[in-house]
Amino acid sequence: MEKPYVVGIDIGGQTAKIGIVNAHGEILAQTVIRSDQHTDADLFIQSLCETIKNLAAANKIELSQLRGIGVGAPNGNYYKGTIECAVNLKWGGNRLIPFAEIMSKTIGIPVALTNDANAAAMGEMTYGAARNMKNFIMITLGTGVGSGIIIDGKVLYGHDGFAGELGHTTIVRENGRACSCGKNGCLEAYTSATGVARSAREVLETTTRKSLLRNLPIESISSKDVSEAALQGDSVALEIFDFTGKMLGEAFADFVAFSSPEAIILFGGLTKSGDLIMKPIVENMEKNLLPLWRGKIKVLFSQLKESDAAILGSSALAWDL
Amino acid sequence: MEKPYVVGIDIGGQTAKIGIVNAHGEILAQTVIRSDQHTDADLFIQSLCETIKNLAAANKIELSQLRGIGVGAPNGNYYKGTIECAVNLKWGGNRLIPFAEIMSKTIGIPVALTNDANAAAMGEMTYGAARNMKNFIMITLGTGVGSGIIIDGKVLYGHDGFAGELGHTTIVRENGRACSCGKNGCLEAYTSATGVARSAREVLETTTRKSLLRNLPIESISSKDVSEAALQGDSVALEIFDFTGKMLGEAFADFVAFSSPEAIILFGGLTKSGDLIMKPIVENMEKNLLPLWRGKIKVLFSQLKESDAAILGSSALAWDL
Repeated sequence: MEKPYVVGIDIGGQTAKIGIVNAHGEILAQTVIRSDQHTDADLFIQSLCETIKNLAAANKIELSQLRGIGVGAPNGNYYKGTIECAVNLKWGGNRLIPFAEIMSKTIGIPVALTNDANAAAMGEMTYGAARNMKNFIMITLGTGVGSGIIIDGKVLYGHDGFAGELGHTTIVRENGRACSCGKNGCLEAYTSATGVARSAREVLETTTRKSLLRNLPIESISSKDVSEAALQGDSVALEIFDFTGKMLGEAFADFVAFSSPEAIILFGGLTKSGDLIMKPIVENMEKNLLPLWRGKIKVLFSQLKESDAAILGSSALAWDL
Repeated sequence: MEKPYVVGIDIGGQTAKIGIVNAHGEILAQTVIRSDQHTDADLFIQSLCETIKNLAAANKIELSQLRGIGVGAPNGNYYKGTIECAVNLKWGGNRLIPFAEIMSKTIGIPVALTNDANAAAMGEMTYGAARNMKNFIMITLGTGVGSGIIIDGKVLYGHDGFAGELGHTTIVRENGRACSCGKNGCLEAYTSATGVARSAREVLETTTRKSLLRNLPIESISSKDVSEAALQGDSVALEIFDFTGKMLGEAFADFVAFSSPEAIILFGGLTKSGDLIMKPIVENMEKNLLPLWRGKIKVLFSQLKESDAAILGSSALAWDL
């Protein structure tokens, strides 16, 4: 293969991770730069390009061996190659940035761009748990709840590039929690890491139940704390996992009725809780599935190492360039 | 074009409609046979084939001019060409019938088969309101609530051929109505014609409110009665349309978050109520959409004549054969 490598870039609010990846999904070289030092997108893109050149040179890789660059970014639009109104990016708020076009012109290599969850789905299909699947749904349980939907081996983008916002489907219709998107009752408001911590605080504040979590300052409780308490058998924490898993399982049954995926694949911090979250998910999904799907839809954890997944996911986009 | 015609067949519990259609979506000849006279699928298929031959001959069309036959049937599976456990068909219950294969062998013309709602979506895309669309969702509001989802110009079938059961997503999570599928709180239990009639009976039985509907025997009230009462300004009937539209609008917002369609297209008896149902749908969908989609997703009524739609929808399948 003349061009045996791709570049994966994962852009977050504070940092951008950059890696050079081969067709086996091995990251040959990687580095990190700050993404919050520029208020101008052009300057940030320039520094990204410089970093790629240096990383390649330091690892004896020619730029001509790079088939393409895949970028995962908040609010990334695959159709247009743009980043739109990404308020978490210092150089992205309230603007439409033709990111792929600028970057491709600057470095002379094709660039494709999508949002983080779609990149995660591509990564799982190219190198991970979905290697032989053509229809699955990726759910990322992090600060928010993201989703990447794969139909017939391709990311579902919809008519405008923004399909797959399953974190913002409504799971509680009456008196639902306020979500950061402005709506109420979204799946994300309950089942993100933030949502789990919020569930814990709600129980601690509205009941007098004993819990290991009471040993922590209430405002600092994280989903990781809830997970650790659950692993020690804390009944409040266990209940929160059951509640979270119930919400996810009920929502998953509706997702199955939409696209009939072979599997739903989970990624993100919450998945470290293993069976604590998996059991109530599967139980409640099964309860809410049409009979024809019962026992037939897999729920799996991602097979990508969390530290590599962001780079691998973005890099997977670039193989098609 | 050597083979300028296709055949569309719509199979229901009592009758099967058969039509010969040209590329402009004109039905050149049509007829109806009973579908409940046989308990054996082979015999029914034989009589279908005879009927097609006679219909063609009577209209001076050669069988060799027929490009293919498209069949819409309850529980039709496109991938396998089978009808699976269709309890409403006398010759279909509890069995898997390789319908397309048998029929194609019997008549010597390629046969494709799908369920009714997918056929409706194909019909709308080929001849109706979705002629220039590649991403839309068809919702059929009849005895049940069916859906056909079009992604990139193709019906979404999922990993097993059964995707698009949006009538069985859950719209009421606590104390939801029992649905014919065995689950509770399904969209279909509230927004099908049957669901609307049930809403009317519930209000009449649990309140003493005045209503034109009280002039009718309560068990016989149909969605058409509710519609007629609403058009006369009956407040109970109007409220039922608002309630039904709210359920649909809320559900539609979640569907948009999944596949970001250009439009949602409505078909079936309930759509005759026009604005009575459209207004609350749009209002409640907009309320529940993420900001990025507000004001951008069309909700439309089908543009196919109800009497022709079933044949046209099924026939649309056959152009790709």
